[in-house]
Amino acid sequence: MKKLMILAFCLLGVLSARGQEQKEYPKPKGMQPRHTEFWLPQPPVITPGSFVATVDMPVSGKVKKGQPATAPATVGASDIYVTAPSDAIVLFDGSGLEEWVGPKGAAPGWQVADGVLTIVPGTGEIGTKRVFHDFQLHIEWSEPVDIQGESQERGNSGIFLQGRYEIQVLDNYHNETYASGGAGSIYKQHAPLVNAMRAPGQWNVYDIIYEAPTFKKDGTFRTYPHVTVLHNGVVVQNHTEILGTTEYVGFPHQRAHGDGPIILQDHGNPVRFRNIWIREL
Amino acid sequence: MKKLMILAFCLLGVLSARGQEQKEYPKPKGMQPRHTEFWLPQPPVITPGSFVATVDMPVSGKVKKGQPATAPATVGASDIYVTAPSDAIVLFDGSGLEEWVGPKGAAPGWQVADGVLTIVPGTGEIGTKRVFHDFQLHIEWSEPVDIQGESQERGNSGIFLQGRYEIQVLDNYHNETYASGGAGSIYKQHAPLVNAMRAPGQWNVYDIIYEAPTFKKDGTFRTYPHVTVLHNGVVVQNHTEILGTTEYVGFPHQRAHGDGPIILQDHGNPVRFRNIWIREL
Amino acid sequence: MKKLMILAFCLLGVLSARGQEQKEYPKPKGMQPRHTEFWLPQPPVITPGSFVATVDMPVSGKVKKGQPATAPATVGASDIYVTAPSDAIVLFDGSGLEEWVGPKGAAPGWQVADGVLTIVPGTGEIGTKRVFHDFQLHIEWSEPVDIQGESQERGNSGIFLQGRYEIQVLDNYHNETYASGGAGSIYKQHAPLVNAMRAPGQWNVYDIIYEAPTFKKDGTFRTYPHVTVLHNGVVVQNHTEILGTTEYVGFPHQRAHGDGPIILQDHGNPVRFRNIWIREL
Amino acid sequence: MKKLMILAFCLLGVLSARGQEQKEYPKPKGMQPRHTEFWLPQPPVITPGSFVATVDMPVSGKVKKGQPATAPATVGASDIYVTAPSDAIVLFDGSGLEEWVGPKGAAPGWQVADGVLTIVPGTGEIGTKRVFHDFQLHIEWSEPVDIQGESQERGNSGIFLQGRYEIQVLDNYHNETYASGGAGSIYKQHAPLVNAMRAPGQWNVYDIIYEAPTFKKDGTFRTYPHVTVLHNGVVVQNHTEILGTTEYVGFPHQRAHGDGPIILQDHGNPVRFRNIWIREL
Repeated sequence: MKKLMILAFCLLGVLSARGQEQKEYPKPKGMQPRHTEFWLPQPPVITPGSFVATVDMPVSGKVKKGQPATAPATVGASDIYVTAPSDAIVLFDGSGLEEWVGPKGAAPGWQVADGVLTIVPGTGEIGTKRVFHDFQLHIEWSEPVDIQGESQERGNSGIFLQGRYEIQVLDNYHNETYASGGAGSIYKQHAPLVNAMRAPGQWNVYDIIYEAPTFKKDGTFRTYPHVTVLHNGVVVQNHTEILGTTEYVGFPHQRAHGDGPIILQDHGNPVRFRNIWIREL
Repeated sequence: MKKLMILAFCLLGVLSARGQEQKEYPKPKGMQPRHTEFWLPQPPVITPGSFVATVDMPVSGKVKKGQPATAPATVGASDIYVTAPSDAIVLFDGSGLEEWVGPKGAAPGWQVADGVLTIVPGTGEIGTKRVFHDFQLHIEWSEPVDIQGESQERGNSGIFLQGRYEIQVLDNYHNETYASGGAGSIYKQHAPLVNAMRAPGQWNVYDIIYEAPTFKKDGTFRTYPHVTVLHNGVVVQNHTEILGTTEYVGFPHQRAHGDGPIILQDHGNPVRFRNIWIREL
Repeated sequence: MKKLMILAFCLLGVLSARGQEQKEYPKPKGMQPRHTEFWLPQPPVITPGSFVATVDMPVSGKVKKGQPATAPATVGASDIYVTAPSDAIVLFDGSGLEEWVGPKGAAPGWQVADGVLTIVPGTGEIGTKRVFHDFQLHIEWSEPVDIQGESQERGNSGIFLQGRYEIQVLDNYHNETYASGGAGSIYKQHAPLVNAMRAPGQWNVYDIIYEAPTFKKDGTFRTYPHVTVLHNGVVVQNHTEILGTTEYVGFPHQRAHGDGPIILQDHGNPVRFRNIWIREL
Repeated sequence: MKKLMILAFCLLGVLSARGQEQKEYPKPKGMQPRHTEFWLPQPPVITPGSFVATVDMPVSGKVKKGQPATAPATVGASDIYVTAPSDAIVLFDGSGLEEWVGPKGAAPGWQVADGVLTIVPGTGEIGTKRVFHDFQLHIEWSEPVDIQGESQERGNSGIFLQGRYEIQVLDNYHNETYASGGAGSIYKQHAPLVNAMRAPGQWNVYDIIYEAPTFKKDGTFRTYPHVTVLHNGVVVQNHTEILGTTEYVGFPHQRAHGDGPIILQDHGNPVRFRNIWIREL
């Protein structure tokens, strides 16, 4: 079996390395399994949510490579149900926006209806009242079916981590744009590994794992912020370094900051959101 | 708004830092947005799967913190349907084991029935015929409802990445064990961040993102293998360093190796698996 | 030229990758060199020290691979002079121990004579009064010429970073010990890349670059401490991860802590030190 | 003592964490020191060089913060002697350029005299015949005393790692330029932590530790190249990520490549070099 052959090969490699094995060295004898079994701290027990369910739910009983899937007759778009993990802060459950503020501390101008949050263009961005350090964020979003325009002018919005590092939201379905500006990109820094976009009207899911930066004395990054993004269950950013702020013109800036909010961008398109929760790490 | 205050604070901090701003330095004027827009390489377009659906699907229309959820009457355990992403290699779709081999290259001795793969204790581990480098692995597993024993003697199995680094599979629901041996642990190295276990009979989901190590001349790690694990949609390992092989007795070993298979462990318990796919990164 | 060939090869590789280049995409034209020239913050200006000079100073006018070198007649061991960088905190300049304390806050029991600090066995460790976060540490040490014993019983001492992570000090010259316990090792965790030891009586130099850890809520490492060590100008640890405390018995522990002192170990051997300075990073 | 107080504090912190300690868990008793003592592989034994000696050698017998230092009467600039480590490849020992080639594979046009290599402006860059992966590079350089111009027009040259990632060489002594273009910068990417420049006519020393990148399928970095730079013994880059090629106009490019040479730039200024050696890691 290939595995055994690889192991044998490695063993030979080690044995021949500098011929050190002719010599007898002490060996760590007498170890017990319990010597490597640590009981504390015990991980906290949580109840996981049913974290994703989509209108793409197929009818087949088998795993198949992503064919266009049809929702079973008994589960329609409006029947999609999820729970958040028991240790999550629910930021939007379909009912109201008490966790959010609009520009200058005003009430958010966006629309809540049928369990869905829709951007009202021109009312400005909304941000969480809470601020966060390291976290896991779950957020679902959907592009308008009657969408117009192309490239960046097509269902554009964004999710700003700690208020300054943008994960792009865009209708990237059969719509090309610059690679580092596509859905799942760290805006103008890192293209997504793949384009895992669903069609307008369907729900996209982002699961975002974020680590905040630490700073040097001069305010630049001592350790970079990192982000892992799953787009519809597919990894599109894998512990990617965020190089600084995600600027429209010019380069990323690095400036010291503390915890920050989640901000959703008003880029003039009526993108919809639902099922938003966050877990502090 | 807090965000603006933080920005203002940072700006002040920068302005006052060493008083350098009194002096006039050249500024990068004249930049255009297009200067930071790169079109190549374009990310490959894939069709995402409907990557998770579980028996925990609740009946409520809102996101709620993980309460015990009841599947809708019309969606039972046997009705769970998923598709894999279009660029995935499906390793088990419920039908057969043509992607797997048993010990010494023999046919796998495990049972396939009703779309589910069940360990037949004593028949030995099974491993993929293919070998992998960096990858995203999706795998679902379920513990027997009539499970006996405690600590490690309770629904024990494991998933070996590149044939040597084990992500623990265990019934960790209302069952304590050493922290670094729980479900979602890198066995005997890193405890999971939380215990996100579902009850016996329910389906657990692992989404595993793995980066292979590189090696120094002496065979030890030049760059460590890293793994991110989501257990039921909750991050339990976040780009965690794997310190070496996951040994039952003694310490992790570091030895140079090439690509390796996914291996599922026979630890003597009839753990069940389904919906296994992998994407090479 | 090889370089051009490599570039050409890479270019071909990119051009052929997925054949994307047939298509015309926008290009970032019109960029000026000034667009990538940033003037602030300016790095602080320091006066570097003459940071190393050793009794090994050879007589030849050419670089030669490390042959046994003879000090020029006019420069003997007692004539070696160094300055610390202008932004360093001088911890020991040969005159006194005002920067140090002994066990339980008592005055240090070690001997200062002829510009050299010598361990008085049995008087206990000494530690800096100051505590540090990230830093560059320069320290010189020398083993007794009449040294006895073997393996770990030979000129053993140690330098504890932030009071808890030990870089081993040992006479490792023609004296074998376990690899992860040699000079330049992170004690019982990481062997040095090479053994760059000078003979007893000569001066060894450590240049140590250290990054402090950050912590998760449970007190374990969120980001690991890292250390780079040059031993006599040769890299022996290259941004190596420190796995936790450096224990004599058992495994590294991870516990949250703040800034910490530099501690020099009394392991019962009269090891000598000189020229100790530190720069906060 | 502060250290004990910190330890006590940490212990209390752990004990109070979630009150888990009331419960009795198994403890890893019976461990012996030998269980954590590993003898293989033994680090290779090398003879370190006398890796740095400069014209700044001061006359005082004590460590002092970097005051202007005077070389002892008996050790002048022409008397500085060093040896390279015994496992180094000596690239320039003052005698000849047999390790180097000029543009298009021609013989290098630079001048060798008195053990020093001087750029002959207009003759083009020179590169090593050998190519390298991971390495430690030692190189000394000196700016002309009759230097003219300012900012980048002052003693400009550069050291290209793997033929494409430039560490800037510049007379940065009492000469301001953009921060990311100063001596010790990764050109147009990362400013040095400090400006540790010596005056024209004196010798500067770079000790450079480099880790090559690995690549994703699309040719972008899977793991970034990293570099640590000591400038005159002072850390100016600490395991800094190299973002891509170091471009004069525009942004870093990421393209897959293999091993590459050390290249020294002809930027039109008669910068001098000496004592160049490299150790493969």
